[in-house]
Amino acid sequence: MSQISTEEIKRISDKNMARFYDYLRLESVSAQGRQINQTAEAVQSFIENTGGEAKVLALEGAHPVVYGFFAAGPSGDAEKTLLFYDHYDVQPEDPLDEWNTVPFEPTEKDGLLYARGVSDNKANFVARINAIEAYKNTEGGLPVNVKFFVEGEEEIGSPHVNDYLEAYADLFAADVCIWESSSKDSEERLKISAGVKGIAYYEARVKSADIDMHSSLAAIADNSAWRLVQALASMRNVNNEITVDGFYDMMTAPTDLEKRVANRIPFDPEASKQTYGLKHPLITDQLPYTPEEALVFYPTLTISGLLSGYTGPGAKTILPRQAMAKIDVRLVPGYEPDKVTELLRKHLDSNGFEDVALELITSVMPFRTNLEDPFVEIVIDSAKKVYGEDKVVLEPNSAGTGPMYGFGKYLNVPILGSGTEWEKSGAHARMKIFVWLISIKG
Amino acid sequence: MSQISTEEIKRISDKNMARFYDYLRLESVSAQGRQINQTAEAVQSFIENTGGEAKVLALEGAHPVVYGFFAAGPSGDAEKTLLFYDHYDVQPEDPLDEWNTVPFEPTEKDGLLYARGVSDNKANFVARINAIEAYKNTEGGLPVNVKFFVEGEEEIGSPHVNDYLEAYADLFAADVCIWESSSKDSEERLKISAGVKGIAYYEARVKSADIDMHSSLAAIADNSAWRLVQALASMRNVNNEITVDGFYDMMTAPTDLEKRVANRIPFDPEASKQTYGLKHPLITDQLPYTPEEALVFYPTLTISGLLSGYTGPGAKTILPRQAMAKIDVRLVPGYEPDKVTELLRKHLDSNGFEDVALELITSVMPFRTNLEDPFVEIVIDSAKKVYGEDKVVLEPNSAGTGPMYGFGKYLNVPILGSGTEWEKSGAHARMKIFVWLISIKG
Repeated sequence: MSQISTEEIKRISDKNMARFYDYLRLESVSAQGRQINQTAEAVQSFIENTGGEAKVLALEGAHPVVYGFFAAGPSGDAEKTLLFYDHYDVQPEDPLDEWNTVPFEPTEKDGLLYARGVSDNKANFVARINAIEAYKNTEGGLPVNVKFFVEGEEEIGSPHVNDYLEAYADLFAADVCIWESSSKDSEERLKISAGVKGIAYYEARVKSADIDMHSSLAAIADNSAWRLVQALASMRNVNNEITVDGFYDMMTAPTDLEKRVANRIPFDPEASKQTYGLKHPLITDQLPYTPEEALVFYPTLTISGLLSGYTGPGAKTILPRQAMAKIDVRLVPGYEPDKVTELLRKHLDSNGFEDVALELITSVMPFRTNLEDPFVEIVIDSAKKVYGEDKVVLEPNSAGTGPMYGFGKYLNVPILGSGTEWEKSGAHARMKIFVWLISIKG
Repeated sequence: MSQISTEEIKRISDKNMARFYDYLRLESVSAQGRQINQTAEAVQSFIENTGGEAKVLALEGAHPVVYGFFAAGPSGDAEKTLLFYDHYDVQPEDPLDEWNTVPFEPTEKDGLLYARGVSDNKANFVARINAIEAYKNTEGGLPVNVKFFVEGEEEIGSPHVNDYLEAYADLFAADVCIWESSSKDSEERLKISAGVKGIAYYEARVKSADIDMHSSLAAIADNSAWRLVQALASMRNVNNEITVDGFYDMMTAPTDLEKRVANRIPFDPEASKQTYGLKHPLITDQLPYTPEEALVFYPTLTISGLLSGYTGPGAKTILPRQAMAKIDVRLVPGYEPDKVTELLRKHLDSNGFEDVALELITSVMPFRTNLEDPFVEIVIDSAKKVYGEDKVVLEPNSAGTGPMYGFGKYLNVPILGSGTEWEKSGAHARMKIFVWLISIKG
């Protein structure tokens, strides 16, 4: 492990702070296409100013991806390449009245830095750039080649990541990949994820009539709200088990190693209940697997929204002509969104719900790195040296979703997620990350 | 049957038209408390100007009820009293952009009269007043006593009808009652209803957490939308059968006469499907009773509204913290709203849905006149003489709801609904009603 001094890290961090703030001021809201090209160019400058090569790549109809390259130093291993995945786009800043600071004006308060996109994911990128500079200053060069893939559509579901990876597979070729970020738990333990769940998100719609009918006609006519409720209820039981025929057959069974790793994830049911103010016991209390296994290994089928008929105060006596549900299906390895769509459609049809239309709105494939890859041990050991032996947690994949799949498919790299997380001291977090991100030479 | 000439009817109708228009101009919107007292006074003037006695009755917190009385003429039967139930209030006029005329400015177009509340129920009341004048002019007096109960809260669910009836039971004592209105079918057959269904209307609410959670947590936490959907699905099956334990035990079985009468109601499934643009077969196709029996004799449990979580365009990946449904339960004789609430609560609790809160928002008791009461035959025969032998249909009760119950309970009268319905010629309809409404002396 390299011996970069805290002083050197602080010096570089301070030197680059003004440019970091300028980067945070760029309103790179991908959903609204705001300042996208300027922000891609800022990413390019960061890389070039630190001595790397950079290219702004463009595909038609897509926001640009910035490619970055830093060659291994004279005493480094030029045969090994580490790829960083980051993104320069951010979520929209509304609702504005929930902000205590100006979203695109970085503001320090009590040692924390507030700005739209600072943690997701602009600080991660800048911390990596700063780490490269500190490493080169101290060691005279990088231990391996470092590449960057910095996209501008992560916050809108990364619709073109796979297109870029397919088009530029040679350019981005690497041996291992560090993902943009991960989360820290309430005990400040860094979670390192070796994968993501996928998603298939649907809108279900029923239209039962051309007009809302008087509810006295319920005696003879069904209505859209009932049709939708009964179709939904046929798909999952009260124990959270998906009752769609053949659904669990798709699942790639977790290995013993994966199960052991999952069950080592610290999980405090009481803390979860308190954080969210849960009114029910955890649903996994009913099931033959642990909450940790549920979060990592099991698909879910969620109603994220429902709308039908009259929803104002008091009574309105109608048979609603139309009803809508948003359905969020989380996928684990073995599931492909299109096959899930096929199964759900078949289930609805064979249960008499041909009238329930199902539209796939967005989808992402699941991904899980092979935990036996040597990269996993290298990253975990390295992180433990910086964060502490009992402050690093590995999860086979997160419960959340991200566009890892294409990196696995086109670059064939193991991927681990980690980054500059929020904790009580933002500056502290940034400093730590400088050291450890670059210390994982393998 | 009296021999009132068409000329006399036309003369009185024309003479009173200006006052009728003034009555339609009064903005008696009960939900908003607009011009309520002026309209009650206008009702009083109509009665007094036609030679009757009238009183504006008031109970605290309630809109006034107008009492009217016309004594039987010299050759009439002073021992018999016919009561008319009407209301002077109307629905709010919004949304204004769906009007082709000014709501409170009566406008004749192609022989039809447009105004807010003209058919429901101001024209019925004025037609009855005109009929009384025409009858007195032609016959020298009324065949029976006639009373009026004209309320001002029908459009907000008649919350004080029973209070008025209880307080003034002696004043309103009568032998028979004609209800405000009824409907005409597409073949211009007049439907005379001998009752109404009741209603118990609920808001069901579930709160599963204090905040909307990220949907990746579906692996361990249930959500309000699923809780509500599964609670609802447990209450009714896809065949429209209410699956709440003991629900059908409450039902008063229809008599053979009631069944025969119900099955004589002309019902055209294809016409219904076309009118509403139904996308499914009639739900009664699955059931062992006819659509006519369903409309008259069976309770229903309807979802009139659903709201939970994200309902905008695209995807939002949340576990909604709260969910709401509007539930409309139609009641037939034997069902009391409070007992229905008890049963539903018990069903939810015993099926593990203690977390689904159920609030009774509004309720009305069902009512059905004994079809063997001689009044029924008198009214039907009388109506057939005016409308034609095959243009009058009796239904044991309508599928809709109204405040008949208190009239049956406090006044112990048989009740039949009929009135000046919309058909192609509004003037024609008004003229007919003059004659037949007063010709039912028994």
